[in-house]
Amino acid sequence: MPVITDTFRNGVDTEKMFATLDLIKAQPELAKFQFRATNRWIDGAHNRSTIKDFYAAGGEDTTRSEAFAIDAGEPAILLGSDTGANPAEYLLHALAACLTTSIVYVAAARKVQLTSVESTLTGDMDVRGALGVDDEPRNGFERIGVAFHVTGDAPQEKLREIVERARMRSAVYDIVTNGVPVTVEVTAD
Amino acid sequence: MPVITDTFRNGVDTEKMFATLDLIKAQPELAKFQFRATNRWIDGAHNRSTIKDFYAAGGEDTTRSEAFAIDAGEPAILLGSDTGANPAEYLLHALAACLTTSIVYVAAARKVQLTSVESTLTGDMDVRGALGVDDEPRNGFERIGVAFHVTGDAPQEKLREIVERARMRSAVYDIVTNGVPVTVEVTAD
Repeated sequence: MPVITDTFRNGVDTEKMFATLDLIKAQPELAKFQFRATNRWIDGAHNRSTIKDFYAAGGEDTTRSEAFAIDAGEPAILLGSDTGANPAEYLLHALAACLTTSIVYVAAARKVQLTSVESTLTGDMDVRGALGVDDEPRNGFERIGVAFHVTGDAPQEKLREIVERARMRSAVYDIVTNGVPVTVEVTAD
Repeated sequence: MPVITDTFRNGVDTEKMFATLDLIKAQPELAKFQFRATNRWIDGAHNRSTIKDFYAAGGEDTTRSEAFAIDAGEPAILLGSDTGANPAEYLLHALAACLTTSIVYVAAARKVQLTSVESTLTGDMDVRGALGVDDEPRNGFERIGVAFHVTGDAPQEKLREIVERARMRSAVYDIVTNGVPVTVEVTAD
């Protein structure tokens, strides 16, 4: 008969979570991570990223047995054949996923059992920028809207606080709202 | 017997591409696009985005018959079970995919036949920020590095110019380097 504990909440091992936080507080050098993706063009708007290894907690993490293969594409109106979601849509996915996981982890830490977390994201873009037709509109989204619907065993106000805390700690939200320096190197032959 | 034309280059229908650019120049209101993603939490760090419809060229685009379902996760060290790449890795994928497609389209427009486009992206992060252990490190990547290797039927210098032009027009590069305003709304019950 399994022992009933409250270690797992929202599918998160909270005992392991607090142990991880304590360890990183004690040894901040373990907090240095590097994530990676390699990408290869296939044809037209079709390209594929392969994601597997990363650096974490003082060494290469080799726990993943399989690589993730992620296909990108464009719809017909943007000259592709829907070989995958397009890059801007993947960015919305990255943002949705990061905010959602942050909500789930914060709720677990605060002993709130969630029953559902759903979100709808919209990104508005004037494609004249990216298509090079006009210099005035920016290339990327002018604005992104995120609408969350969250349910759980806590008062509305507490659920809203959890979303707010998650927003303040989300890695991708920080990247997308504040920007990051990107260097691009090229070898050609 | 098929008629041999040079309309397709790098898998891109350049005739359609130039017609699209002309149309958008003539009717700039057609350039307003909206991309969308809906996301649903599944368990722990596992959540899934569904991507299908979007607004383009004056109306809802309904050409996609199937939705894309994209799973996110976290590795064990970040309390997940690798149900998918993690959100920060998806952001690297979005950036790689956008730059790559931009390179392919720019090359097609400039009559350059590419033979390969490969890239490796790295994103450095001090996870004390996102984990809420320390207010000093930012939550997101401190920096992103992109290394491209491009080959094709043009001199090195021309291939480099194509990458540079693609960088200057990439939607996701703009978003990631410059940031975008994001609004977050919450309903809770």
